Amino acid sequence: MKQRDVVAQLESRRKTIDNIDAALVYILAERFRCTNEIGMLKAEHGFPPVDEDREKSQHARLRKLADDAELDQVFIERLMRLIIDEAVQRHGQIAADHLAKNGSPAGQ
Amino acid sequence: MKQRDVVAQLESRRKTIDNIDAALVYILAERFRCTNEIGMLKAEHGFPPVDEDREKSQHARLRKLADDAELDQVFIERLMRLIIDEAVQRHGQIAADHLAKNGSPAGQ
Repeated sequence: MKQRDVVAQLESRRKTIDNIDAALVYILAERFRCTNEIGMLKAEHGFPPVDEDREKSQHARLRKLADDAELDQVFIERLMRLIIDEAVQRHGQIAADHLAKNGSPAGQ
Repeated sequence: MKQRDVVAQLESRRKTIDNIDAALVYILAERFRCTNEIGMLKAEHGFPPVDEDREKSQHARLRKLADDAELDQVFIERLMRLIIDEAVQRHGQIAADHLAKNGSPAGQ
């Protein structure tokens, strides 16, 4: 293959990656919109921000998904840890904001 | 809202999150399929595994995408660092495998 054909192929793959990255960012935005709603529901009704059983079942499901998609389980675990930690941190912030505004969570 | 209605709403949001996570895993699998092809092209034609200019433009683009999607830039940077590091590590492995099999990269 000529050098310019290789460069053209690299450029084409990079365009696909740029499109995929935009999709990843927007799908993550939707995920946080959803976890923020969960955080708000939990804060309003006095549920704790973290649910360990839910987290365990999420991790088991993700390990299976990683296997099905032929991705490294350790990599997916690290990636999802980062995303879930960000969501949990937002839940804590939402609960603190709710407490500051309303004095105490409903249901407590 | 009654307790059981809150639980039903939480369950509904969690189903959405599970669907989003499956989409994230499969879209990441496609991203790695694409970066592996780039790794193979680079190894076959003697290009270095890392292209700093490309990485810089990727990061600038991601910062803008994070802003547009109202996500924290620092979080997106950390997430993409993890994904790009995994891709670069795969490029290095593909280059090493190619070298072991063929003696030297084409074009060198």
